[in-house]
Amino acid sequence: MASTVITGIGELTTNAEETGTRTGAALVLDGDRVAWVGPEAEAPEADTRVDVGGRAVLPGWVDSHTHLLFAGDRTSEFAARMAGEPYRAGGIAVTVEETRAATDVELAENLRRHVAEAVAQGTTCLETKTGYGLTVADELRAAKLAATEVDEVTFLGAHLVPPGQDADDYVDLVCGEMLDALAPHAGWCDVFCEQGAFGAEQSRRVLQAAAKRGLGLRVHGNQLGPGPGARLAVELGAASVDHCTHLERSDVEALADSDTVATLLPACDLSTRQPLPDARALLDAGVTVALASNCNPGSSYTSSMAFCVTTAVLQMRMSVDEAVRAATWGGARALRREEGDGAVGVLCPGARADVHVLDAPSAAWLAYRPGVPLTHAVWRAGTRCT
Amino acid sequence: MASTVITGIGELTTNAEETGTRTGAALVLDGDRVAWVGPEAEAPEADTRVDVGGRAVLPGWVDSHTHLLFAGDRTSEFAARMAGEPYRAGGIAVTVEETRAATDVELAENLRRHVAEAVAQGTTCLETKTGYGLTVADELRAAKLAATEVDEVTFLGAHLVPPGQDADDYVDLVCGEMLDALAPHAGWCDVFCEQGAFGAEQSRRVLQAAAKRGLGLRVHGNQLGPGPGARLAVELGAASVDHCTHLERSDVEALADSDTVATLLPACDLSTRQPLPDARALLDAGVTVALASNCNPGSSYTSSMAFCVTTAVLQMRMSVDEAVRAATWGGARALRREEGDGAVGVLCPGARADVHVLDAPSAAWLAYRPGVPLTHAVWRAGTRCT
Ligand SMILES: [Zn+2]
Ligand SMILES: [Zn+2]
Repeated sequence: MASTVITGIGELTTNAEETGTRTGAALVLDGDRVAWVGPEAEAPEADTRVDVGGRAVLPGWVDSHTHLLFAGDRTSEFAARMAGEPYRAGGIAVTVEETRAATDVELAENLRRHVAEAVAQGTTCLETKTGYGLTVADELRAAKLAATEVDEVTFLGAHLVPPGQDADDYVDLVCGEMLDALAPHAGWCDVFCEQGAFGAEQSRRVLQAAAKRGLGLRVHGNQLGPGPGARLAVELGAASVDHCTHLERSDVEALADSDTVATLLPACDLSTRQPLPDARALLDAGVTVALASNCNPGSSYTSSMAFCVTTAVLQMRMSVDEAVRAATWGGARALRREEGDGAVGVLCPGARADVHVLDAPSAAWLAYRPGVPLTHAVWRAGTRCT
Repeated sequence: MASTVITGIGELTTNAEETGTRTGAALVLDGDRVAWVGPEAEAPEADTRVDVGGRAVLPGWVDSHTHLLFAGDRTSEFAARMAGEPYRAGGIAVTVEETRAATDVELAENLRRHVAEAVAQGTTCLETKTGYGLTVADELRAAKLAATEVDEVTFLGAHLVPPGQDADDYVDLVCGEMLDALAPHAGWCDVFCEQGAFGAEQSRRVLQAAAKRGLGLRVHGNQLGPGPGARLAVELGAASVDHCTHLERSDVEALADSDTVATLLPACDLSTRQPLPDARALLDAGVTVALASNCNPGSSYTSSMAFCVTTAVLQMRMSVDEAVRAATWGGARALRREEGDGAVGVLCPGARADVHVLDAPSAAWLAYRPGVPLTHAVWRAGTRCT
């Protein structure tokens, strides 16, 4: 791979310093790494020069929460919900059935299509989860396919108790044979800790078993009502608790005293007609906040991180800087990839060359121009994608 | 211009019948008109055949409310608002100053760029307003430039009392010399009837003078608080009252008994941190509702009609059918272009060939996939644009 110097940058967001943005800067990519960031006048030579004409440059989005191993869609369930039916976790079973019935080729093709769609909108690092298989073979297949296309694979056998199965028997399976099969193919384990899915004790069992196998921990919690998810995540040192739509004051305080990221999924809240999470309470308490898409065919079928940022600024009282940081550095932190060689969500020497050029002079336009597609160019690990 | 038959349509929205959508249909465009709609098996021959591969087809968006004759942007005012400052109409004066200082070429280029951006997102019929000139010469220049690029031109001399001028003197100018100059170049007259802009009496004077000159009437009303705008619009038989964020029950009843469309501008409400309008109250009372972008650099800098539709469904309790209809047929009705030869917002023989093909099997995906760019192809008056 050759080197590229990016010049003519209107506003550069690096996430590498306290302030976040700078003007008059240039950026050098070498292979799949950022090689240099500094004043344009001092930029070293490179094989290629790309002048972005005054556009804003930021790290590619880090989408730390998606469910892309699925088949089919749930348009009619969505339409029914928009006509007044409440969201129920049970809808997941519909996708499980379609996913099990799909061939490997179909699943891989669907995954590739969704990843390409996300990358075309500026996402350069993706996590994705299993969880629409719910048998050892189907979960394993999902994890293996995921590893070919995304950056982080999460085992979510505990997504839903398969219809007709006993919950505790299923938890035994997840903690035993399923975890044995999946552990070599996943970096993370996640649990849907929610009324209608898994309770606190069941969730703890799964997460503790996974931790023993060396997997990092993540939790779906506090989505549809108050619950034990956030506290459990803190107790077990999970990297992230995701949703956080219904937090109590004590949850916020527990998160503030922890290394657990609160990952907010506003497109999901809007798509299920839930309230939006209280981002302000989290930020003001000092909690690290991430924004992610939760892309899945049931509760949040979007790959648009820009939509999440727009919503966070316009409706969740996050500033532009806070929202952009949450969708880049925050996601990286939720995946424990924000530091060191090949870090994502930051633009500094040694970071992965994940670059997003906006068709806008500043990142503020992501909220100032809601809905307008603003992705101008994308490099993912040094490869120009858009 | 040649003829084109569009086949392979997943779901066709015509707005021509009560139900709105049909499957298995084809569409023939001939020159700048729709020539035929019917079952694909019965489609007549055409010069070109375009198979859209199961995608949804709908009329192009009709954006019945924009302000595209401006120079500059107001990013810093937007950022300050997101940091807690309230929106004030006075911000308009900033754009007035920059617009007056711009050359004709600069204004025309800015207009063309914004129209092209809208068309690329599926908008095929646009209204735009003057209102950043506020002198006879500057308003006239804006109207003449607008006529070259958009479908409907609205004279909005009564956008703001220019700083330092007496309000009633300025209204005299608007009703007199300015209207004399503008009337030959505009189809509509609009007034910003709001606290801080023009009161009921001033607004009535402007609109009555315009009606005498044969202009159709539009009103900006009830944006920042309850006020006389909606009632005035009904009283004077205006085609539309726009914003409607703060309506009283009596306003809704007056609208329901009238031919005045209630045009909702949700991107503006979100961008100014206003509540969203009560679309349900209007629809349930039988009011015709339109959705429009209000694209302008101050309060709503978006050209994305899809964002308006998404917001209407996810947050304003409009169904997908209601929202899509409001952004197509509703906008056309607000411009009195929904019927007859060259009608817009509908797909039936004789309508203008304004066609929007989505990268989706159904229009529901506009809300199901928030923020994902879904425009696949656009024909505007028979010309393929995207
Ligand atoms: Zn999830
Ligand atoms: Zn307006």
